[in-house]
Amino acid sequence: MERNVDLNGFLENKQNFIPHLSIDSVIFGFHQDQLKVLLLRVHDSGVWSLSGGFVRMEEGIDPAALRILRERTGLENVYLEQYHTFGHEDRSKKNTLADILDFGHTEEFRNSWLNKRFVSIGYYALVDFSKVNPTPDSFSDIAEWFDLKDLPPMIFDHREMIHKALESLRANLDTKLVGFNLLPETFTMPELQSLYETILGYPLRRNNFQRKMLSMDILERIEKLYTGAANKAPYLYKFKAPTTEVV
Amino acid sequence: MERNVDLNGFLENKQNFIPHLSIDSVIFGFHQDQLKVLLLRVHDSGVWSLSGGFVRMEEGIDPAALRILRERTGLENVYLEQYHTFGHEDRSKKNTLADILDFGHTEEFRNSWLNKRFVSIGYYALVDFSKVNPTPDSFSDIAEWFDLKDLPPMIFDHREMIHKALESLRANLDTKLVGFNLLPETFTMPELQSLYETILGYPLRRNNFQRKMLSMDILERIEKLYTGAANKAPYLYKFKAPTTEVV
Repeated sequence: MERNVDLNGFLENKQNFIPHLSIDSVIFGFHQDQLKVLLLRVHDSGVWSLSGGFVRMEEGIDPAALRILRERTGLENVYLEQYHTFGHEDRSKKNTLADILDFGHTEEFRNSWLNKRFVSIGYYALVDFSKVNPTPDSFSDIAEWFDLKDLPPMIFDHREMIHKALESLRANLDTKLVGFNLLPETFTMPELQSLYETILGYPLRRNNFQRKMLSMDILERIEKLYTGAANKAPYLYKFKAPTTEVV
Repeated sequence: MERNVDLNGFLENKQNFIPHLSIDSVIFGFHQDQLKVLLLRVHDSGVWSLSGGFVRMEEGIDPAALRILRERTGLENVYLEQYHTFGHEDRSKKNTLADILDFGHTEEFRNSWLNKRFVSIGYYALVDFSKVNPTPDSFSDIAEWFDLKDLPPMIFDHREMIHKALESLRANLDTKLVGFNLLPETFTMPELQSLYETILGYPLRRNNFQRKMLSMDILERIEKLYTGAANKAPYLYKFKAPTTEVV
């Protein structure tokens, strides 16, 4: 990676980031029957990373996660869900920036706050990858969608972060799906089922799926309008407005 | 709170804790039909807190959470589940230690690392409160079980942390319950239902509950032994060994 003025300021932590704390976001991309993940290639290397960064001293972690995603990939208005914080004492010791970056061997970098242990707060998002066109920032030269079964070499424990995010996404699909805004405002039951199958990675039985979805009380059926024509169109559904839970 | 040598070392961060990062654990206590939460009273104050502390520079966050729980309450071998990290920029600004502690107004405390913003990693646990006898450490003078509907004044955002933990516990009951080791090795369906009802806070229909539990494929039914007597004893169940998920 080329040294530049921005990076000099970065090594000196001029933006006053909280030390030892990072944020990484797993951006899942869904389209038709494919589920992918967005990765950034570290400049001039064969190593890839999640969209990640640091939290400013006066900044909340949720706004920081959105800012980092916007700065690193150009993606805006993405619904991010916090899922797990990664804090093994050795997580920043393997596939480190010091190993990957051109100037990683310099004393300045090795002594900098960037080369220390980081605890990382993980977020994930789910977007329609045909609708977004991510562009990498100055730390990375390519932003690319990868198949989950074909991940490239990654820094730190980012592969584990992806696996854990997928686990969380699958486990919470019923309650989280509405937030991701992946379906049009109204949709058919087969469209919803196709989304589930793509994320879960296996087919579901149509009758069971429909019964389960209807029993969860999260869908509202749109009454068909009388058009005069023979009415063979499938029912359309939309998500009910979420209710607030009280303890 | 009395000043003592330990506290002096603490203010100077002699244990080399990661700055701006804390861990807080919500210990839920279950017994018969009651669900409570364990709180510690800040010395000589009317303000209570979760069992919390800091992460050493060379320590993983999971071992740190267990160490803190042991040091602050005397509880050992508790299964802790990480559920959410709290990082609003203002979360350390209300009901602060500086407001509560006797020496909170001293310049030394106000300038210390303890009086800074903290991002806190939340864990929760579920224990049988009739089987544990927590004892407070030197930062607190009482450890007490509170009804969730009758919480005392609490520091920072600890009340919100409890509510969010309860939400997570309820949402993940089906998948997490086995880990908490709350039931004897074998148990009846009514015993399991009673545990669910206490945590969820509302009654469940017996037939529905039994059908749902059996359909989840997490229980193994113990075959009754032939005793010669009329066999009216209810079936006993145990949790199946967990299977490892692969991506």
